Order: sequence, then structure tokens, then C-alpha cells
Amino acid sequence: MEDCIFCKIAAGEIPSATIYEDDDFRVILDLGPATKGHALILPKEHYANITEIPDELLQKAIVLAKKVVTYMMKALPCDGYNVVQNNGEAAGQTVFHFHIHLIPRYKGDGAGVTWQQGKLTDEWKAEILEKTKGLRGE
Amino acid sequence: MEDCIFCKIAAGEIPSATIYEDDDFRVILDLGPATKGHALILPKEHYANITEIPDELLQKAIVLAKKVVTYMMKALPCDGYNVVQNNGEAAGQTVFHFHIHLIPRYKGDGAGVTWQQGKLTDEWKAEILEKTKGLRGE
Repeated sequence: MEDCIFCKIAAGEIPSATIYEDDDFRVILDLGPATKGHALILPKEHYANITEIPDELLQKAIVLAKKVVTYMMKALPCDGYNVVQNNGEAAGQTVFHFHIHLIPRYKGDGAGVTWQQGKLTDEWKAEILEKTKGLRGE
Repeated sequence: MEDCIFCKIAAGEIPSATIYEDDDFRVILDLGPATKGHALILPKEHYANITEIPDELLQKAIVLAKKVVTYMMKALPCDGYNVVQNNGEAAGQTVFHFHIHLIPRYKGDGAGVTWQQGKLTDEWKAEILEKTKGLRGE
């Protein structure tokens, strides 16, 4: 897509620190990393988010995430990994080209990919169970 | 696996707010939600993390994530979604049974599934490019 920076990076038109590439994806180092080794999986085709990307390409993306995480756990080495995929501005997505964050974690790194835990109230539970009837085919 | 709470929940031995179920997965509402509708995809078979789960089941899990997100964006409705999969205690994983967090986001919810952005230094870049040679088959 014209004017999409991730399209240009994925196509190699804008240089990047590429740690892996195949026919469908380019994996680059994030310029604003949470930790050392923070990478992004970019499909070469443009899809805005998880609702748009075709199932087959999404399946390839997650298997590639597994491959990179498995390799990096030993190669870095690191103690854990956050695999994060954000959709929409409200979710912190800043480039509207589907991507997966692969964030290596090191004991005590304080990178804090986390959230404040609330409580599942009876009210919320009832509301969501009602709203998901269609999902269950009820 | 014995003594795994997510095995027991996925098998229906411990009750949960189940929003979806099929042969391979149970999707439940998180008891400590970041936002209203925060759900977890649990495979019925026990695998500790993304490095252990077989490719085929992982592919099914991410396609199910897409299905639930696509449905919930309209059903809730919400403005975005974080899809988060944590591996290892250092990454905030607290139950060592593979799971995917599906976190609906609402404008201004302040749930903050985010991280402090650092800077990709030349030193880090050189180190990671060296350590990923095997990943690229170099």
C-alpha cells in the first residue's frame, strides 16, 4: 500500500536490520525496542490487522513466531518472550500494517509488558456470556 | 497434566465462564481482566509455551484468536484488541500452560498493555545480527 512504511520496509525499499526473510515475511529489529532483540514480523502483503489477514498467512506468521522465539531463547539467550499483536489505535497499534512483536525478556529487565488486573464481576460475566451467544452458535 | 489449573479448566473439571468451546480449545473469561471481555484461549492438551505447542495446534489457536477478535469487535463493541501470548516467568507467564490473552480495548480505557520504548543502538544491532546468522542459514 502506498505510504505504508511497513510495506516499504518489508519490500526492502527502506533499509532495516533484517534478522530473517522468506517469501512471505521480513523480520526486523524494532527501532524503539522494549528490550535487546525486540523484533517485528512483517508480512510482505499489506493487511491492516488480524481481522484482515488471510488465515493461511496468519498461520504462517505464528509458526514463524514460534521458530524465531525458539531460536532466540538459546541464541541470545533470554529467559522468556512476549508475543504481542496489537489491533487498532486504542490497542497501541501505531502502524496500520499487521505485525507481531517478539519481545525477549530477561529476569528483572523491568520492561513490564503487563496490565492492571481487575476483577471479573457477575455483571460483566453475564453481559459477555449474553453477547457471545452467536460465537457459540446458540 | 496433573495439578495444572488450566488443564482442569479446559477439561471442564473446574467451572469457568466459557465463551467458546470446540474439540481443541476452551475460551474463558479471565478472572483478573485488564478490560471488560478479556478472554483466554486454552488448548485442551497441555503444552507449557509457544516453543512446545505443535505447529498444527498453534495454527488453529491463532485462527481461533482471529475469529473471536473479529466477532467481539462488533459484539461488545470495542475499539481495538491486544493479542498477547507470554512465555516464561520473566515474561509475566503465571500459569505454565500455553494460552493467548485476547484483550478488548476501549478508547481511553488506560489498560496500558505497552512498554517503554528504548533505542536500537548500533551495538545491539550488530550483536543481534551476529546471533541470528543461524536463523538465516548463513
